[in-house]
Amino acid sequence: MIIVKVGGGKKINLDYVCQDFASLVKREKAILIHGASAKRDEIAKKLGHSTKTVVSPSGISSVYTDEKALEIFLMTYAGLVNKQIVAKLQRFGINAVGLSGVDARLWEGKRKRNILIREKKKVKLLTDNFTGRVEKINTELIKLLLNNNFIPVICPPAISYENEIINVDNDRAIAVMAKELGVEKMVVLFEAPGLLKNPKDEKSLITHIDKNEIDKYLKFAKGRMKKKILGAQEAIKAGVKKIYWGDGRIKNPISSALQGKGGVIS
Amino acid sequence: MIIVKVGGGKKINLDYVCQDFASLVKREKAILIHGASAKRDEIAKKLGHSTKTVVSPSGISSVYTDEKALEIFLMTYAGLVNKQIVAKLQRFGINAVGLSGVDARLWEGKRKRNILIREKKKVKLLTDNFTGRVEKINTELIKLLLNNNFIPVICPPAISYENEIINVDNDRAIAVMAKELGVEKMVVLFEAPGLLKNPKDEKSLITHIDKNEIDKYLKFAKGRMKKKILGAQEAIKAGVKKIYWGDGRIKNPISSALQGKGGVIS
Repeated sequence: MIIVKVGGGKKINLDYVCQDFASLVKREKAILIHGASAKRDEIAKKLGHSTKTVVSPSGISSVYTDEKALEIFLMTYAGLVNKQIVAKLQRFGINAVGLSGVDARLWEGKRKRNILIREKKKVKLLTDNFTGRVEKINTELIKLLLNNNFIPVICPPAISYENEIINVDNDRAIAVMAKELGVEKMVVLFEAPGLLKNPKDEKSLITHIDKNEIDKYLKFAKGRMKKKILGAQEAIKAGVKKIYWGDGRIKNPISSALQGKGGVIS
Repeated sequence: MIIVKVGGGKKINLDYVCQDFASLVKREKAILIHGASAKRDEIAKKLGHSTKTVVSPSGISSVYTDEKALEIFLMTYAGLVNKQIVAKLQRFGINAVGLSGVDARLWEGKRKRNILIREKKKVKLLTDNFTGRVEKINTELIKLLLNNNFIPVICPPAISYENEIINVDNDRAIAVMAKELGVEKMVVLFEAPGLLKNPKDEKSLITHIDKNEIDKYLKFAKGRMKKKILGAQEAIKAGVKKIYWGDGRIKNPISSALQGKGGVIS
């Protein structure tokens, strides 16, 4: 089985991704996980509730999810982008079923209600945060679907142990899912040709990272790339043997990635 | 098996509905179908794309769904309200799975791309309409879920034969679904005590309609009530033996309806 994860960037070509994913599904069992960050930010702005990033006292930034932000998250991830992907896959002959981590408690975890943030040099406590961390995967529905030729298309949010809807990190959720499902191969698509040494130089592609030496690359990585490498590290720890990175903007993005064109961690 | 349909009105109490639905599920197989019209209209207005009603040359009004309206539809129905209901049901111990008619091609039908409308006494042709009519139900996934103790929570939109996402009439879709699944009982919840003779008088409850005499009531019905009676007529034609109407604003709305408190068509 293979997990394909496609980011939610604006330049990702979902038609290309879905077309290629449809060919993949004809060869092996596969699950598609997706983001929708660009659409989320666009709608949030239009609704006058722009996505807000907060910084922890130790300097780590994250998206702050109050109740309204959570509603926008649900709308854009589980509603708009999820169903658009399902319809595209149907167009390519794949009987896709769109799910969020809330459905059948697919992605379950702990809510982090209170967070400390640094704002204008002061430390502040926020007590209405709807983010969390996926710790448990309820795989029964996924297995049932796959065994009956339905293809799961999954996105956040997840559900807390107390049944609240929570925004979670996609990369971490996938790592836990890979572990629970015994997935050994993963394709990660984003808005770059692959794993870059220098994010500003698309030619600085790293073709291979030894899975035992991910730490070395972590120190060079910045911003989003850091998060992706951390996610990869987590996936490797969870038992994934090969992670293929790839360009979500090009034609045949998954097959290209599987040919090693965007860099491989193994 | 029983189908419970809950409208998308602002005053519907989804906590009450979900709590009562959870008790029902412990007694018999059930599917929950929902709307989200109030939320759709609210978000549409905030996004500067208010829900637009058009009138056909023969005087029948309907919601016009262009591409943007369809996106708002997806966001509010399949994203926001669907997942909120799923989380509520999880809270009451029900392993709910939220789906739209697009997923696994649950609700399939014909797109009505071109519609004639009357605007300021002129007849105009609109060619970018994303509405349609559900004609086919692909029941395999629903049966698979029910046989494995997952409870389906379903909402529009549907998918066209050409794989476009289409806005459809919920009541009609449910009638087709009842037929394909052999459902004989249906509960319909909305923002009124039940089936009213006079929509302005909450005491003018009609306690019983003979299923062969629905036509008689149709001529008295106005606006939304007309659509509901038409939907009921279609459901009866599809083989449903009893339709229980009920108040979606009160505690235990489903059990009250099943006790005949909101009126019964049989």
